[in-house]
Amino acid sequence: MIPLPHQAAKAAIQQALQEDAGSGDVTTAALFPTPCAARATLVARQHAVAAGVIIARDTFLAVDPTLRITHVAEEGTPVREGVPLLEVTGDGRSLLMAERVALNFLQRLSGIATLTAQFCHAVRGYRTKIFDTRKTTPGLRLLEKWAVRIGGGHNHRQNLSDGILIKDNHLALLRAMGRSVADACRIARERAPHGLRIIVEVDRLAQVRDALEGKADIILLDNMTPEEVHHAVDLIKGRALVEVSGGITLGNVREMAAAGADFISIGALTHSAPAVDISMELVPHRQKTARRRRP
Amino acid sequence: MIPLPHQAAKAAIQQALQEDAGSGDVTTAALFPTPCAARATLVARQHAVAAGVIIARDTFLAVDPTLRITHVAEEGTPVREGVPLLEVTGDGRSLLMAERVALNFLQRLSGIATLTAQFCHAVRGYRTKIFDTRKTTPGLRLLEKWAVRIGGGHNHRQNLSDGILIKDNHLALLRAMGRSVADACRIARERAPHGLRIIVEVDRLAQVRDALEGKADIILLDNMTPEEVHHAVDLIKGRALVEVSGGITLGNVREMAAAGADFISIGALTHSAPAVDISMELVPHRQKTARRRRP
Amino acid sequence: MIPLPHQAAKAAIQQALQEDAGSGDVTTAALFPTPCAARATLVARQHAVAAGVIIARDTFLAVDPTLRITHVAEEGTPVREGVPLLEVTGDGRSLLMAERVALNFLQRLSGIATLTAQFCHAVRGYRTKIFDTRKTTPGLRLLEKWAVRIGGGHNHRQNLSDGILIKDNHLALLRAMGRSVADACRIARERAPHGLRIIVEVDRLAQVRDALEGKADIILLDNMTPEEVHHAVDLIKGRALVEVSGGITLGNVREMAAAGADFISIGALTHSAPAVDISMELVPHRQKTARRRRP
Amino acid sequence: MIPLPHQAAKAAIQQALQEDAGSGDVTTAALFPTPCAARATLVARQHAVAAGVIIARDTFLAVDPTLRITHVAEEGTPVREGVPLLEVTGDGRSLLMAERVALNFLQRLSGIATLTAQFCHAVRGYRTKIFDTRKTTPGLRLLEKWAVRIGGGHNHRQNLSDGILIKDNHLALLRAMGRSVADACRIARERAPHGLRIIVEVDRLAQVRDALEGKADIILLDNMTPEEVHHAVDLIKGRALVEVSGGITLGNVREMAAAGADFISIGALTHSAPAVDISMELVPHRQKTARRRRP
Amino acid sequence: MIPLPHQAAKAAIQQALQEDAGSGDVTTAALFPTPCAARATLVARQHAVAAGVIIARDTFLAVDPTLRITHVAEEGTPVREGVPLLEVTGDGRSLLMAERVALNFLQRLSGIATLTAQFCHAVRGYRTKIFDTRKTTPGLRLLEKWAVRIGGGHNHRQNLSDGILIKDNHLALLRAMGRSVADACRIARERAPHGLRIIVEVDRLAQVRDALEGKADIILLDNMTPEEVHHAVDLIKGRALVEVSGGITLGNVREMAAAGADFISIGALTHSAPAVDISMELVPHRQKTARRRRP
Amino acid sequence: MIPLPHQAAKAAIQQALQEDAGSGDVTTAALFPTPCAARATLVARQHAVAAGVIIARDTFLAVDPTLRITHVAEEGTPVREGVPLLEVTGDGRSLLMAERVALNFLQRLSGIATLTAQFCHAVRGYRTKIFDTRKTTPGLRLLEKWAVRIGGGHNHRQNLSDGILIKDNHLALLRAMGRSVADACRIARERAPHGLRIIVEVDRLAQVRDALEGKADIILLDNMTPEEVHHAVDLIKGRALVEVSGGITLGNVREMAAAGADFISIGALTHSAPAVDISMELVPHRQKTARRRRP
Repeated sequence: MIPLPHQAAKAAIQQALQEDAGSGDVTTAALFPTPCAARATLVARQHAVAAGVIIARDTFLAVDPTLRITHVAEEGTPVREGVPLLEVTGDGRSLLMAERVALNFLQRLSGIATLTAQFCHAVRGYRTKIFDTRKTTPGLRLLEKWAVRIGGGHNHRQNLSDGILIKDNHLALLRAMGRSVADACRIARERAPHGLRIIVEVDRLAQVRDALEGKADIILLDNMTPEEVHHAVDLIKGRALVEVSGGITLGNVREMAAAGADFISIGALTHSAPAVDISMELVPHRQKTARRRRP
Repeated sequence: MIPLPHQAAKAAIQQALQEDAGSGDVTTAALFPTPCAARATLVARQHAVAAGVIIARDTFLAVDPTLRITHVAEEGTPVREGVPLLEVTGDGRSLLMAERVALNFLQRLSGIATLTAQFCHAVRGYRTKIFDTRKTTPGLRLLEKWAVRIGGGHNHRQNLSDGILIKDNHLALLRAMGRSVADACRIARERAPHGLRIIVEVDRLAQVRDALEGKADIILLDNMTPEEVHHAVDLIKGRALVEVSGGITLGNVREMAAAGADFISIGALTHSAPAVDISMELVPHRQKTARRRRP
Repeated sequence: MIPLPHQAAKAAIQQALQEDAGSGDVTTAALFPTPCAARATLVARQHAVAAGVIIARDTFLAVDPTLRITHVAEEGTPVREGVPLLEVTGDGRSLLMAERVALNFLQRLSGIATLTAQFCHAVRGYRTKIFDTRKTTPGLRLLEKWAVRIGGGHNHRQNLSDGILIKDNHLALLRAMGRSVADACRIARERAPHGLRIIVEVDRLAQVRDALEGKADIILLDNMTPEEVHHAVDLIKGRALVEVSGGITLGNVREMAAAGADFISIGALTHSAPAVDISMELVPHRQKTARRRRP
Repeated sequence: MIPLPHQAAKAAIQQALQEDAGSGDVTTAALFPTPCAARATLVARQHAVAAGVIIARDTFLAVDPTLRITHVAEEGTPVREGVPLLEVTGDGRSLLMAERVALNFLQRLSGIATLTAQFCHAVRGYRTKIFDTRKTTPGLRLLEKWAVRIGGGHNHRQNLSDGILIKDNHLALLRAMGRSVADACRIARERAPHGLRIIVEVDRLAQVRDALEGKADIILLDNMTPEEVHHAVDLIKGRALVEVSGGITLGNVREMAAAGADFISIGALTHSAPAVDISMELVPHRQKTARRRRP
Repeated sequence: MIPLPHQAAKAAIQQALQEDAGSGDVTTAALFPTPCAARATLVARQHAVAAGVIIARDTFLAVDPTLRITHVAEEGTPVREGVPLLEVTGDGRSLLMAERVALNFLQRLSGIATLTAQFCHAVRGYRTKIFDTRKTTPGLRLLEKWAVRIGGGHNHRQNLSDGILIKDNHLALLRAMGRSVADACRIARERAPHGLRIIVEVDRLAQVRDALEGKADIILLDNMTPEEVHHAVDLIKGRALVEVSGGITLGNVREMAAAGADFISIGALTHSAPAVDISMELVPHRQKTARRRRP
Repeated sequence: MIPLPHQAAKAAIQQALQEDAGSGDVTTAALFPTPCAARATLVARQHAVAAGVIIARDTFLAVDPTLRITHVAEEGTPVREGVPLLEVTGDGRSLLMAERVALNFLQRLSGIATLTAQFCHAVRGYRTKIFDTRKTTPGLRLLEKWAVRIGGGHNHRQNLSDGILIKDNHLALLRAMGRSVADACRIARERAPHGLRIIVEVDRLAQVRDALEGKADIILLDNMTPEEVHHAVDLIKGRALVEVSGGITLGNVREMAAAGADFISIGALTHSAPAVDISMELVPHRQKTARRRRP
């Protein structure tokens, strides 16, 4: 349902394989001079939301197109310890060469999806949507933002080109030129691409009024307490949409939703999600049997 | 002292800028049609070991070579909240365009260096060295391994080509062929590149004896308790070096060192280090004054 | 004032030089075995708006960094026959090698800027803004859209990721699923990135009503006559912004503006702008004199 | 019959898709969360010579290899309004994502082929051949020169490495060294790659004599009137081949052919050919029926 | 048995085809406007060990995936004059376009394999292994080192990252700091990656003693006579492995093996192996017959 | 005088450094944790013609732009044992990291220049010119062909796009279609790019007559004896230029020149030139003194 950014995935896989096995796997080459049939299973070692199974699969196939994929868990599946995510059979040497890169993708992306799902679960019952930020790993933005969607979250702008977000640092420079928050919104509306809404980041109530005067489409309340968010929502009275950001944790996110936020954006989804524990089990595999099973 | 892998850094910066600002920063372009002098300061918001300051600096310069760098903290410096890591002056539009990418590198790499330093601190007094693994972010391996060194750690093999590490999955396949751990070590010694030592991963004491018989150079004890490590070290009696891995935390790492480990390798250094909180402060800057201050 | 997309320009220059002179300039190499000082002047041969002078300059410097730039016309300058746009001195062999690539960029981009300026001039006095489309030359989109801005126009979305534009083909598929234009607008609003406005393309008045019901932010009237546009504007009554596209010529654009269009988007700006006639004049150059002139 | 430069086409398609849909098509993704079968037809809206149909096809397949191509017009086919050039069926979301890039290639290349065919038609009955120049779009040279051949024209040198063409600027520098046009031809013959003919550009009759003395293989008459070309041809008397260039239009090209030109080279073929009007029609498509039709 | 580095091969083939036929094969295009069925046979013209047959095959397929491969000699096969290495049928135009690049790879890599096999043959009966060096052709290291293995040799370190080799120039700098050869070995052991052995290059017996004191794993005797090697081996008495390098020829390599070298490394294997004489024979091919033969 | 193909050199240097030191030089890093000033001298160990000195220099600067170049021998200089080709001072760690790549370029290119110079010397006194072929190392064609020019030779066509050469395999296919050598020449003349001469390869006298009938510009006599060449030249009587190729050695090249060849093309120049023995000497360097010497 949620399409993987395939070009980005393919490029990332190539880069990672080059990085890890550009000159070959000397251990495996020394131990196994000839092909040896084996079956590899990637298994979760904890509760998690799986993301990146397809990328893991494609990593194996990039190393050796003759590998056979015999099981692929659906992206976004909630899994618990012991559940297999991917099963691949073929030359054990190829399985060993692909193992680490496949797991590195799968562990990181599942970590992001899992954390996102926890935040989404925490605001269940409210209309509030969970968003990521641009605080992503350099080089993996498209994949990490995809993992957020897999976990049930939404994507904020992909990059500086596809959204107008007037931040504190913009306002600081404008203030020195005698421009208010309202001025900032009006200038942006006049000059920005006509297909983009105006989002403005404010950190106190006075600025909220100013943003309303400037007819901002969305007001981003930065680093406010749930009470402050509540006041701001009262003040805004539906004249703009309300986004909340800064210092959001699993402990306070529900309060933020209750305070009336339309959107909550959380940097930690991508910059601090711990990797999910997933490992690869390898067993010898009698190919003949495998072939017999095929219709 | 610890040289940055410059080519890798340059490529990563280009890729990240392309990802974040490939078609330009529409907000900044709309708000500031002409240059506006400003000074940006990157400031730590918590205790941390700084890593990636040079990469942040080079990110600013990649966006705009006319920016002037007026302060650069030394890589590896322990910092606390409020300490400036980098100060850059010039066209505020360039500073705003580079902000996120510079911070994304700096926050992640400092996170790795900070966590590494905590582990190194925990084993202080023992000869044990802290090592990373290949569980790195796809595309950032050289930079993340550099951050480990900045934090006081050591690097395990960079990739599959520059080290012999016989793992459980290798042994599982060899066992099915009737080969023992000792056989594995001997085969590797015979066929592997002659400049590489033989490291073999074992997870129970019986295998340790087998590894010694095979004349392994280094025996990696995987997922053992401190007590098991102690027994293994007694058994090995200096005939091989001892590496410990699996399930290492800040809570148990000192026990592992006390048990006699020469090396402890920890995947979490790179796969689960939380980002350090660092932000950019931007203020208008009167250029004439700045120039006057120059000698 | 309007910043050039430098990375895109640099990449395009490298690609073009590789294409034109990858294995060297055999004519020049045969005729001039040793350096010969010369001065090249790029001169307009017709009325035009100059765009790409910086790219032409950088092409010369990419071929030979020792060339000296002695005159650069400002981007966007209206010029007439005989006006010099760029003057470069140095080894005549480098000037000859860079000539064609520099001119190819300059002629095409000036062609776009010139045509854009003609359209902008034609709607002078109205609030209507002139926009480009995605009908650009493959590989040169950022540069061509920059040339549109140089000519006084505005940029529509850069690509499929940074704008919501529901077109006739989207509506055709939705209609088969029983969804109306209003439904389309509502679905897009619910699911699209929250920072983007909803633009919907309609080609008859009935659809305009439907789009208003769906609360579209901008209604794009496609292939309508000025009279139809007038009726649509009356119907919309400011409840949405009005964009006009399709079949726009220098002959009818002013009528469209008069009919009340906020925005007019024109594919021909980039897909059919004729190249501006610009040529390079080369004369021998006594270097000593040149050096003396330097302060 | 005229092989497409496949590598160049593939690279250009990738670059263009990256440019247009690097982060995905947000409109289509919002409107169609699941696959929807559709049939797309690319249809000419005017008389034209089709070129780039294969590139359009490959663009669709690059976006989604599961699309099925059900009709492909032959390259070079003369078409009129309403004639289908390409028909593709499959997931409508893929068809929408590929639409603009496929059309951008097809419209531009068909524009070049169409203009070339008009020039070829204009000289019908004479032995004169129509040639392109190096005045191509940066990055698209191989494809544009291929389109010229599709239109019935011939290719001048591909780049500076594969032809000797002594131009006015070369002669200007040589003159300052006391070298004549004849000297230039002789030097080129002596030093240039032995497999290349010597072509020299002249703009007055006196130079023609000089070029003959230098034993030029081909004399390029630049910016001459048909009468001057006639005189030059009389003077040359078959001792060299005659090329004509500069200021050639559909209005005067036949006169040039009549005046005796062997070759006529025309920059406008590639730098100013207007795009052909081609559009994509999309209709829902019942897949079952489609499958039934297959034998 | 010896896996080809496929990614490196693929990249090298692309680069070579780009270099040789980026803008097409003008001769073949002129002579053969339509396809012409043919069969190409690559035939050895001298005794040799074949290496690169797969690369030659993949070169043909990269030029034209519709070509059919009807014979492929096994890599490492010893061949004599007249023996076919590869047979390909299909459009003769594709065969002609691929010919030179395929032969360039095959001739060079077979040259390396052939010379390596000669050295291996010369030491037959001794336990000594033949090694390559880093004196490879820039850009072709992985392929050339693969050819060495095909010829029966072994690979020294692939690059500066995967082996510790303390050379004369390192020692020269350390000496100036008051450090001995033994110090060098100890420092390297302390600071180098823990998975690498310490190899130290010495050129006189006194240094051998010093290297033993420093507990070097492998002592590389550089530019010594067989007698000197014999003395060194006596001195080392199995406390370190012995590598010999410098001035090795087919005339003296057996003496070096007899003197007790474990490893002999030879730069000439890759920097001076003469190309093997291999040519392509092309004959017309009646396709119908070919098809009939297929089952 | 003979310009280096700078783009090709730069790309080759980057590729070679990536190949050799992508993850750093672990030996040097272990031995020298801090900078150590040194001076490196690249010295010839045999008589040779130097080629690639600039590439060696640029390799050092690519590794470390702070290195200082204190001596550069001129490209093409004949040198003898002990003559320094390049002297570089700076951080010894950078010098060590660049050493091998710099030498690999310099040894190979000097090998080609040296062999070329020997062939040129052998035909001294005749008007005959020595040419290379397309039998170059994949990836290094432009550099190797440059080295041929440095050695005094000339370049045949760079690639399949910039020369018409009808070879035996073309003729074999044409013969099966009932076309003669004369037909081949005429067809090529009609259809090939008009700026290219027609070169045809023949291997017996009967074909020479046929080639003359077809008005070939250059007749390439393949694998003929000097006597056969003499007969062919008599037959041709200046109606075409004469090229000789196949089986040319230093032993027979002068006879070929004496037999009347205008051009002799020799594959061995690039496919079998042995590397020149060049080594790098490194000595500590007191930087203060060096600085004092600067004015």
